[in-house]
Amino acid sequence: MNISSKFLENAVDALATLPGIGKKTALRLALHLLNTDAQDVEEFSKAISDMRKHIKFCTKCHNIADDELCNICLSHKRDQSVVCVVEGIKDAIAIENTQHYTGTYHILGGIISPIEGIGPNELNIVSLVERIKSGEVKELIMALSPTIEGDTTIYYIAKQIKDYTVNISTIARGVSFGGELEYADELTLGRSIVSRTPYKQ
Amino acid sequence: MNISSKFLENAVDALATLPGIGKKTALRLALHLLNTDAQDVEEFSKAISDMRKHIKFCTKCHNIADDELCNICLSHKRDQSVVCVVEGIKDAIAIENTQHYTGTYHILGGIISPIEGIGPNELNIVSLVERIKSGEVKELIMALSPTIEGDTTIYYIAKQIKDYTVNISTIARGVSFGGELEYADELTLGRSIVSRTPYKQ
Repeated sequence: MNISSKFLENAVDALATLPGIGKKTALRLALHLLNTDAQDVEEFSKAISDMRKHIKFCTKCHNIADDELCNICLSHKRDQSVVCVVEGIKDAIAIENTQHYTGTYHILGGIISPIEGIGPNELNIVSLVERIKSGEVKELIMALSPTIEGDTTIYYIAKQIKDYTVNISTIARGVSFGGELEYADELTLGRSIVSRTPYKQ
Repeated sequence: MNISSKFLENAVDALATLPGIGKKTALRLALHLLNTDAQDVEEFSKAISDMRKHIKFCTKCHNIADDELCNICLSHKRDQSVVCVVEGIKDAIAIENTQHYTGTYHILGGIISPIEGIGPNELNIVSLVERIKSGEVKELIMALSPTIEGDTTIYYIAKQIKDYTVNISTIARGVSFGGELEYADELTLGRSIVSRTPYKQ
């Protein structure tokens, strides 16, 4: 791309490193920033720089945090005896956004996947077992992807902690709310019949 | 969106101000930057900040420049007697990318559009007339959008400079290269027949 300014070119190149953003979109974004108030662009740039510089990872649950421990691990309003095990930070944010969960999290940083070369040692499993050993955890909710890899990870974790008294549950799997049965895939529909739940009147 | 870190939240809010980027995409981009090398993120942030701080607009053609005049207006390799009049910076970059043009540009900063309240005084027309008055311009290529507003703008500029000897041309309008005739819109196809060009053997 021929651009008459080195500064603009650098900004376009920088923006084009973001996932899903090509050179044309990067140029559109850069020109937008060029038409934005100088003070706002300075704050934009500072917000990104500050994030990378100052963000820490919670030493307890491995979620992003501004301090040693994240807000959720520190909060007295959250049930510290319930731990929801998730693959990544995005999953924790998605569950937080439902506003249906009041416990804490444990971010694994991935799931066991031999194909991608990810074994248990690459994940935050040791620290999870430590949390359970400490006795403060009563329930573990496994909120992992409903795939073979997810199931393997759940199985592995369950085996590691079988000597401790902790209830393990997995999030409910079945047809989506608002979804029509005829469009549900066969595996989901089949399993949702096998795992049917009693109707409460 | 409930995010456990104020720094991440600020970065997500900043990224979500970009056009076409919502909160979810902003979060994805922010998490990507969080996984990127700290030095690279610092350069990313600096590139954007520098662009807004240091970019100037060429005093001659109003294109973006790193100095008083842009590279194109300064270049001895470019034909300074040919001026291509475009609506915005993006159009000049698009024409540059074709590598078929060796003249200079003049960025109007928009086109005359009474509906949007843009009149000739909001555009860089006075400076274009000045360039022509100076006598260095021999040809003016109008590369504006093929719309009523574009045609109005061309008509207005042509009227302003009718006392000077300068050739005015518009970019060719017709069916796209590689396009199939049956999918061309009627107006384009109709005009392309009216403005047919002699076949050169």
